Amino acid sequence: MRSFPKFDLATAQRAQARQAVLTKPAGSLGQLEQIAIQLAGFQGSDTPAGGPAAAILFAADHPVTAHGVSAYPAEVTAAMVQNFVTGGAAASVLCRKLDIPLRVVDVGVAHPYDVSRANGEVTFRRADVASLGAGDIRTEDAMTQEVFESALAAGAREVDELPGDTRVLVLGEMGIGNTTVAAAIACALLRCDASDIVGAGTGIAGATLRNKIAVVRDASARANGHAPREIVRITGGREIAALIGAAERALERRIAVLVDGFIVTSAMLALVRMNEDARHGLLFAHRSHERGHARLLHALDAHPLLDLSMRLGEGSGALAALPLVDLACTLHNEMATFANADVPGPVRGAG
Amino acid sequence: MRSFPKFDLATAQRAQARQAVLTKPAGSLGQLEQIAIQLAGFQGSDTPAGGPAAAILFAADHPVTAHGVSAYPAEVTAAMVQNFVTGGAAASVLCRKLDIPLRVVDVGVAHPYDVSRANGEVTFRRADVASLGAGDIRTEDAMTQEVFESALAAGAREVDELPGDTRVLVLGEMGIGNTTVAAAIACALLRCDASDIVGAGTGIAGATLRNKIAVVRDASARANGHAPREIVRITGGREIAALIGAAERALERRIAVLVDGFIVTSAMLALVRMNEDARHGLLFAHRSHERGHARLLHALDAHPLLDLSMRLGEGSGALAALPLVDLACTLHNEMATFANADVPGPVRGAG
Repeated sequence: MRSFPKFDLATAQRAQARQAVLTKPAGSLGQLEQIAIQLAGFQGSDTPAGGPAAAILFAADHPVTAHGVSAYPAEVTAAMVQNFVTGGAAASVLCRKLDIPLRVVDVGVAHPYDVSRANGEVTFRRADVASLGAGDIRTEDAMTQEVFESALAAGAREVDELPGDTRVLVLGEMGIGNTTVAAAIACALLRCDASDIVGAGTGIAGATLRNKIAVVRDASARANGHAPREIVRITGGREIAALIGAAERALERRIAVLVDGFIVTSAMLALVRMNEDARHGLLFAHRSHERGHARLLHALDAHPLLDLSMRLGEGSGALAALPLVDLACTLHNEMATFANADVPGPVRGAG
Repeated sequence: MRSFPKFDLATAQRAQARQAVLTKPAGSLGQLEQIAIQLAGFQGSDTPAGGPAAAILFAADHPVTAHGVSAYPAEVTAAMVQNFVTGGAAASVLCRKLDIPLRVVDVGVAHPYDVSRANGEVTFRRADVASLGAGDIRTEDAMTQEVFESALAAGAREVDELPGDTRVLVLGEMGIGNTTVAAAIACALLRCDASDIVGAGTGIAGATLRNKIAVVRDASARANGHAPREIVRITGGREIAALIGAAERALERRIAVLVDGFIVTSAMLALVRMNEDARHGLLFAHRSHERGHARLLHALDAHPLLDLSMRLGEGSGALAALPLVDLACTLHNEMATFANADVPGPVRGAG
């Protein structure tokens, strides 16, 4: 089991005390105060930092799509990798606008794509694990031990290559069929039925949705009762394993992870179940419209910053929330106190 | 009655059609899609703009504070004006971080303050209306017709001085006692009882809260049955009138108004009740923790971007939401379509 740096409770308490004397009614910045306090404790710093930030997207395909669980053909994974790299995808647009580096990593894309017209702002890599193959989770393990270890390592490697001053990491994913995969992980971790978790994904309904529930039920049944790490190996995709490997390495380096929607949250729940110390460095960006997300968030005692009915993936919800994390820290660090601004405090007995 | 530019329905429909062919499942950017579509129609532009933005804060005092309705002494209004101008307040920090111009306008601050150490990034003005005095709304009209007109004009004047390329305006306020004032306006506009609206403001409870409810009940009773404009004159503060005057002028210039919390929303409900065409240019930033805000939002059919338990005022909730408006427009304008990125669309019959 990995050991993450300890949460610095004394620093978090100083941050909380500072929030109480900034020139505003106590608590009136709501969750922005909580973000600054959590980051102060996680970073062990009296001046918590919401940046510099960076984003990494992991993409992979899933043999389970052969069962017709998605509204889109599997070729879309490859086409979207190309779209990320050439700058037209939501994640690309957001990273460009926010001026943060974007890394796109193929950890198992099955169809061809062309990255020769790559946008210079995006770093692309095809990881070794991409060529190793994956199993159909309805009937077989998603990954062998070797593939699983390679996918974890591929995630960690990308974090090792981030700029040394990175303080916040946005993790995202792309993979047609991966709400099915994430639902299977969620069901096995939470010990609940597929019908409680499975949602519309990219936009399915009716018979396709009922079929997806059946597939998730079969896949999660194969993983039930196993340890969290095994659950990911048995039912997870390579991009899920890479997300876990990346988050582990980030947390070791005291880089906070801003968690996106349903799929990234399923990976982070597995990580926290492996090592609960991981929770201190996780910030939750948004409540996805995808059905099972609420249960995952509840299991993590997470109260995300945004609730905008987004359900895209690609780290898009986390990228949308990133400015709030930065603003929360800036408010904490730069606001005047009642004492140094000479502002009178509350009248005694009014509250 | 003012006449605002018509909402451009054809442009909004083109924006909606574009959202459906961008490289993402239809609807998967949730409220960010709606923001872009609304701004396209309001601005009459196929490339809606979430910036440049600017912020204006109006500050005033209220004789009603003599009844003990706030957790803070009235001197705090003046002290906070000084804090805005010298850069230590939440609004100042947010504007600096977001790199948008901030104007601070005294439209009726009762106590002395010192703006000689003004931060060069902030524009400060003491408006003529500040010297005209206001009534105690429990027993008398807040403003004479003359004061009311002057306060409206003071608001409009600030908008006239914004940079010509401004596309989004954040309006904020400061005034000890002004949740009491806003609650009285809300009760009169919504024809509901003070106990349905009055909340903790800067942080009151118990006997102080019961007293505030009684004060609001008396004030709103004096305004009940009047036209919206008269309701504001009778129960509103000068900063509320200035907010309305500023919003009117902004909307005339096709500058969208990003609406902050309880107090600004009470002003905007009055404006929309005067002229429902005003609604098209209003974007709602956040759901305040202040109790009565939910009813105001419901009356305006507003679904704010943020719900972070903030209750500070100063335009802070709107400033926090501003990056989302900008990102929504950038996504709309810069994402690739399925056709131009050569990404396959959905499989027929999956949905």
